[in-house]
Amino acid sequence: MVQLGLVGLGRMGFNMRERLRAAGHEVVGYDRNAEVSDCGSLGELVSALAAPRIVWVMVPAGEPTKQTVAELGDLLSEGDLVIDGGNSRFTDDKHNAAVLAEKGIGYLDVGVSGGVWGKANGYGLMVGGDKALVERAMPIFDALRPEGPREEGFAHAGSVGAGHYAKMVHNGIEYGLMQAYAEGFELLEAAKVVEDVPAVIKAWQRGTVVRSWLLELLVHALEEDPELDDLEGYVEDSGEGRWTLEEAINHAVPAPVISAALFARFASRQKDSSAMRAVAALRNQFGGHSVKKAGE
Amino acid sequence: MVQLGLVGLGRMGFNMRERLRAAGHEVVGYDRNAEVSDCGSLGELVSALAAPRIVWVMVPAGEPTKQTVAELGDLLSEGDLVIDGGNSRFTDDKHNAAVLAEKGIGYLDVGVSGGVWGKANGYGLMVGGDKALVERAMPIFDALRPEGPREEGFAHAGSVGAGHYAKMVHNGIEYGLMQAYAEGFELLEAAKVVEDVPAVIKAWQRGTVVRSWLLELLVHALEEDPELDDLEGYVEDSGEGRWTLEEAINHAVPAPVISAALFARFASRQKDSSAMRAVAALRNQFGGHSVKKAGE
Amino acid sequence: MVQLGLVGLGRMGFNMRERLRAAGHEVVGYDRNAEVSDCGSLGELVSALAAPRIVWVMVPAGEPTKQTVAELGDLLSEGDLVIDGGNSRFTDDKHNAAVLAEKGIGYLDVGVSGGVWGKANGYGLMVGGDKALVERAMPIFDALRPEGPREEGFAHAGSVGAGHYAKMVHNGIEYGLMQAYAEGFELLEAAKVVEDVPAVIKAWQRGTVVRSWLLELLVHALEEDPELDDLEGYVEDSGEGRWTLEEAINHAVPAPVISAALFARFASRQKDSSAMRAVAALRNQFGGHSVKKAGE
Amino acid sequence: MVQLGLVGLGRMGFNMRERLRAAGHEVVGYDRNAEVSDCGSLGELVSALAAPRIVWVMVPAGEPTKQTVAELGDLLSEGDLVIDGGNSRFTDDKHNAAVLAEKGIGYLDVGVSGGVWGKANGYGLMVGGDKALVERAMPIFDALRPEGPREEGFAHAGSVGAGHYAKMVHNGIEYGLMQAYAEGFELLEAAKVVEDVPAVIKAWQRGTVVRSWLLELLVHALEEDPELDDLEGYVEDSGEGRWTLEEAINHAVPAPVISAALFARFASRQKDSSAMRAVAALRNQFGGHSVKKAGE
Repeated sequence: MVQLGLVGLGRMGFNMRERLRAAGHEVVGYDRNAEVSDCGSLGELVSALAAPRIVWVMVPAGEPTKQTVAELGDLLSEGDLVIDGGNSRFTDDKHNAAVLAEKGIGYLDVGVSGGVWGKANGYGLMVGGDKALVERAMPIFDALRPEGPREEGFAHAGSVGAGHYAKMVHNGIEYGLMQAYAEGFELLEAAKVVEDVPAVIKAWQRGTVVRSWLLELLVHALEEDPELDDLEGYVEDSGEGRWTLEEAINHAVPAPVISAALFARFASRQKDSSAMRAVAALRNQFGGHSVKKAGE
Repeated sequence: MVQLGLVGLGRMGFNMRERLRAAGHEVVGYDRNAEVSDCGSLGELVSALAAPRIVWVMVPAGEPTKQTVAELGDLLSEGDLVIDGGNSRFTDDKHNAAVLAEKGIGYLDVGVSGGVWGKANGYGLMVGGDKALVERAMPIFDALRPEGPREEGFAHAGSVGAGHYAKMVHNGIEYGLMQAYAEGFELLEAAKVVEDVPAVIKAWQRGTVVRSWLLELLVHALEEDPELDDLEGYVEDSGEGRWTLEEAINHAVPAPVISAALFARFASRQKDSSAMRAVAALRNQFGGHSVKKAGE
Repeated sequence: MVQLGLVGLGRMGFNMRERLRAAGHEVVGYDRNAEVSDCGSLGELVSALAAPRIVWVMVPAGEPTKQTVAELGDLLSEGDLVIDGGNSRFTDDKHNAAVLAEKGIGYLDVGVSGGVWGKANGYGLMVGGDKALVERAMPIFDALRPEGPREEGFAHAGSVGAGHYAKMVHNGIEYGLMQAYAEGFELLEAAKVVEDVPAVIKAWQRGTVVRSWLLELLVHALEEDPELDDLEGYVEDSGEGRWTLEEAINHAVPAPVISAALFARFASRQKDSSAMRAVAALRNQFGGHSVKKAGE
Repeated sequence: MVQLGLVGLGRMGFNMRERLRAAGHEVVGYDRNAEVSDCGSLGELVSALAAPRIVWVMVPAGEPTKQTVAELGDLLSEGDLVIDGGNSRFTDDKHNAAVLAEKGIGYLDVGVSGGVWGKANGYGLMVGGDKALVERAMPIFDALRPEGPREEGFAHAGSVGAGHYAKMVHNGIEYGLMQAYAEGFELLEAAKVVEDVPAVIKAWQRGTVVRSWLLELLVHALEEDPELDDLEGYVEDSGEGRWTLEEAINHAVPAPVISAALFARFASRQKDSSAMRAVAALRNQFGGHSVKKAGE
């Protein structure tokens, strides 16, 4: 059993603490929210751990993660290890690793998939960093990942950054998968040829080519709300879809499906579209086609 | 100078009658709307013309055109000529031509482009049918087409159906062109790096690679309404974009731009999207991501 | 146990006969290929069955299916039942049902998913037609579908045509899912940040959001050929993707992901693209940008 | 008449020198290629100009431009003005302006459109920077821009960077426009309904909605090579399409047409596609569908 500091006890971090403790590991958690925190500060967290320490960071990507890593750099000692399990952009990892390397502190980046279901099912893990550090943290990875063969829920993807890169692409794919199901759902709803749409989607769970965990989640959602009309078609995006597309651009990789999925989310959040106002205006200009006046 | 019957005096037909008369041709127009019609019925129109007659049909595509052609088939005589200048699907042309051929009546299909500006500028014409019939109708085509070399505003595209096919593809391209400008406009509006967006678009009219007639129309629209906020981003589609995409499918031709332009119109008319409700539901299911409740 | 005629013993039909027999049903199979056929003709097949008969048709979609249904209409008797389990377009079903209804013969259409794995795993089934006929054929459906709750591998989707409609949309979604994984794979390959791409994809099988049966198949494929370089990126399409897109057009449903997946297949089969020759020519015209000469 | 240094005498810079001289301005050009250069070094160029100087930089975007600007910063004096007319990313402009501002040297960024035709037709110009500097350089802009009203070929788009931003979006639109024509061309070629495709495209030049300068260039290209089969469908991209898409991502602007056009170029340069190999492998895995072996 290992001892572990865990910074960030939000939806993901909180559940991971539970899963790690259930596996017998000792977890000292810190969060700004005192109600869930095991200690009063990052300093207290570090003091509570015996060297060489392992601290897992699970805070929002970008500045919060960079800042936490920097603070840990000040508090930790040579030979300690920081693991960033958040949704950081892979380009942040080299920076974070370098900041810590100056002080002899190791760094691993881990892409963590599985959402709220990870506590019960285990989390899919993709890790970047030195092999020796990966081995050192393996008891933690083994506790977090799903049961079954390790290589089906865990990969050492490469050097620093590779874990988040793998997770980024994973999420890009996820955008595409979700949009594919969503387009099919909309067509079934619109065509009204299939009389019981939720029953058909439910029946895709076994035997079919499209069966997947996402499909099971869609079945759950339709069981609660058969036409999904309790909610709005308003969808956020959280960084990784955008980064995947940026990387596709960098490497000249055509990504029509992933980009279409991302653009559909952008469009879902627009009350009205400047672009489509321009098209409406053009049609009116050349053809005298009627337009909808704003507020009509 | 020739004599011509013209059935359908809506936005397009009315203007075409003006342009034909201005060119010295004798036009007998018929429309169900007595205010604009020159005669009381199709029968009267046919009676008013000396054989061999030419009757130009300019009514809505689909059933209205088919029915008008069928009625003309009953009223006209061997050696007469019917020209369908509407936005018919090219597959209707073979049917219409066959109906008339049984009675020895000729048929030409003409794709007509130019919208409300055609009256002043002339119309771009794409014609399908027999060469001899095309020659016979040439004085009409010459009056309708823009000034300048005939081959820059008129083409005999091929046999029956080829005129409407060419027009269909023309309109598919048009969808893509409009959407390209529209996306650029939206990005300029959103980024706020360019301070005077209408001024930049206005400046694209001379010298640039993107100069076009559609761009000039966009400039007109922006002069009237610099942020296009008098209207809604709600855009109809009128058949030809859909047919172009169906033909691309038939011929296994990738058409990502034309389809994207068509889908953007579909989406512009949706109050809410079933597809995006499904994506929102999925995100909520796996990640506990918050969703917008309907009506929020 | 029921008795069943099965017409068409290709890859799918052959396996289905095995699975049905393993479940204890009596299957009389007919195929033009005498090596696999149980009888010499459709007539012999019909004679071998006791009335009221059930005949399952599993031949290529379109004309072959229509013709088989027509022949069965001549051979079968009032009260018999024909089931089309092929990949027919849903619009063919009404025609086939009507042909048979004239003679008092029932008709069901069944979308069958699962490919070569169905023999072992069971097939996902989506059925269209009258409830009473569906009940009558239920022992067959129960033998073909996967183990587990019936409603997770079987749905009565609606009236005639609804089974094939559901299967069509299923396949449209499948195109999108496959393309999403494919784009992610290509990006991982191109970026070279992840060192062991197959290991990462293998690790997505448990715990992650993108886990699915298709993902497992991709893992199998990569185990056999880690860079997939034994094969060419040449992909056929088999009708249902095109029909899904046509239906999306008919119902004004935006389908950017499914269309992108279809277009990627079209493009994969082109040695060279007319469209891209046009773009190259345009760049050369306005910018003097160099072009690749054909054959270079 | 003004005096102007011009650095970079490639395809664009060379022609611009001609046009400026034809308008009566004094141009001292410098290029590493001594055959076209008017002087032997940047230093000689600066020495040849009377203060306050104007130096127009027309070298490749990125490092070459940054380096040239830095060198000019060392050579020029307070009150001088540098104009970057290359295809720089708008984010480079703030850097370049800051480098020069330290020495009291002014900076303007200019997006220049028109390609090899600009020498004869004039160039479309979009300028970013301080109003006073824009006024100072106006005689140059007036010489370079097309004849006609200034505001139809010139815009002061905003502060530093806005000129290149406008040009970037211009080029993004251009990608979409070209792809729209290209898809239409490919469909016409594939369908073979229209017998004389070049004649139809030629006829779109007058009266139609799709008439544009790019269309005229397509007509030229088809006059030289009616099926465009002297060249390959291999298309480079030059930065601005990618940046436009990156900016669309940054601002959450859906850009399906511009991205599709960019991806089509990426795909045009691939001998084989990893993504489509993955799709082929998947089809083979689930359905036993045959695949093309590499090298077949």
